[in-house]
Amino acid sequence: MDPEPSGQYVQSFARGLAVIRAFDADSPRMTLSELAARTDLTRATARRFLLTLAELGYVAIEGKHFSLTPRVLELGFSYLSALSLPEIAQPHLEALSRELNESTSASVLDGDSIVYIARVPTRRIMNVGITIGTRFPADVTSMGRVLLAAQPETLWPDALRQVLAEVRAQGWALVDQELEVGLRSIAAPLHSPDGSVTAAINVSSTTSSASLERIRDEFRPALLRTAALIEQALRQVRPGRA
Amino acid sequence: MDPEPSGQYVQSFARGLAVIRAFDADSPRMTLSELAARTDLTRATARRFLLTLAELGYVAIEGKHFSLTPRVLELGFSYLSALSLPEIAQPHLEALSRELNESTSASVLDGDSIVYIARVPTRRIMNVGITIGTRFPADVTSMGRVLLAAQPETLWPDALRQVLAEVRAQGWALVDQELEVGLRSIAAPLHSPDGSVTAAINVSSTTSSASLERIRDEFRPALLRTAALIEQALRQVRPGRA
Repeated sequence: MDPEPSGQYVQSFARGLAVIRAFDADSPRMTLSELAARTDLTRATARRFLLTLAELGYVAIEGKHFSLTPRVLELGFSYLSALSLPEIAQPHLEALSRELNESTSASVLDGDSIVYIARVPTRRIMNVGITIGTRFPADVTSMGRVLLAAQPETLWPDALRQVLAEVRAQGWALVDQELEVGLRSIAAPLHSPDGSVTAAINVSSTTSSASLERIRDEFRPALLRTAALIEQALRQVRPGRA
Repeated sequence: MDPEPSGQYVQSFARGLAVIRAFDADSPRMTLSELAARTDLTRATARRFLLTLAELGYVAIEGKHFSLTPRVLELGFSYLSALSLPEIAQPHLEALSRELNESTSASVLDGDSIVYIARVPTRRIMNVGITIGTRFPADVTSMGRVLLAAQPETLWPDALRQVLAEVRAQGWALVDQELEVGLRSIAAPLHSPDGSVTAAINVSSTTSSASLERIRDEFRPALLRTAALIEQALRQVRPGRA
């Protein structure tokens, strides 16, 4: 059971994490057999992981069915809590959302994707499913372009070189219906106290609510002011940290 | 290394999860020695877990320092995605927030705590730090009392018996400054298609903005209407599921 390679990789840990990830909207409750099939584990091995997760309070057992408990959120929020940025940014994003009556968000780069770390929604726009943890391709989003522009140029995708150079030079990115028809957003970088770009914030709206002029003349200065306020708060709260 | 008890408990999995949880706002970046001290693991064992997490994309390594990556959010969001309720409730909570110009939330019970699974903030109230995953004691919150009231009476804390009986009978709970001075909220249960109470939603406000009369006469009917709409949506989307 649970053979562990002699190297540095803890296979049983990796398998256990795969058991957690196996639960999703299509399979929120599974029997042992269903979970074993989904994870390519034997029933006996899957059972040991499920019982370990139950012992730790991460899995609930009802008869033959297993499901995750809200305690699993602790794991994801180890990251958010460690980042500290979402908590510091949140009141500023709320104020920006109130001022413009539009949705605001913060995200970080993870590979080729942006991941939402804070969000203040204001109305039922198309992307209702966006929440903390939601991922989008970086190259078609305003926050993604801000974050990519801060990367070394050698990492830039060829097709985006001109766009990213412009974003880097002007200090903000506007994306007009490239992620989704009818959706517009403008993003700005957040610099940590050491000067590096650690996250991006944006204001998103719809073509019917926000003309390109309104985004440039009204959203842009408010967004850049909010980014400056968050950067100032980051310096005050944790002088030595991002 | 990593001795595994012969029973059903996968100790190396439990230890690995403890490594993830070791990162927090006070220790977002740690050296191997710091992490080993925090988790009571040997340096060699801690190192294997960190390298496994790095291999899976959950940990970033910068020189001697280790930190979590946003990919860790996937683990917590396996739960939210499996629940499906946050996504279904979100647009209704947004509409309720707009209608009343107050913050709205949804939460579930986990032991003696409530855990936020959705939140629509509207202004900078006292609890700015509330986000998905935030926990509060159930007994002093309106959503907690709604959720406790749905539990079998044998599980009720003695001090709350009268309050919970009242909440169960009337179908909502109002908490006036018990969690925090100046904060008021009213909550209602969300029933899954099988009739059980799986979550609660609330409207929270401040004493200066919302009199008790306004909460009863204006918030309460809007809240109960929203709960009914979410329950209807849950039945339509996933007839067989919570």
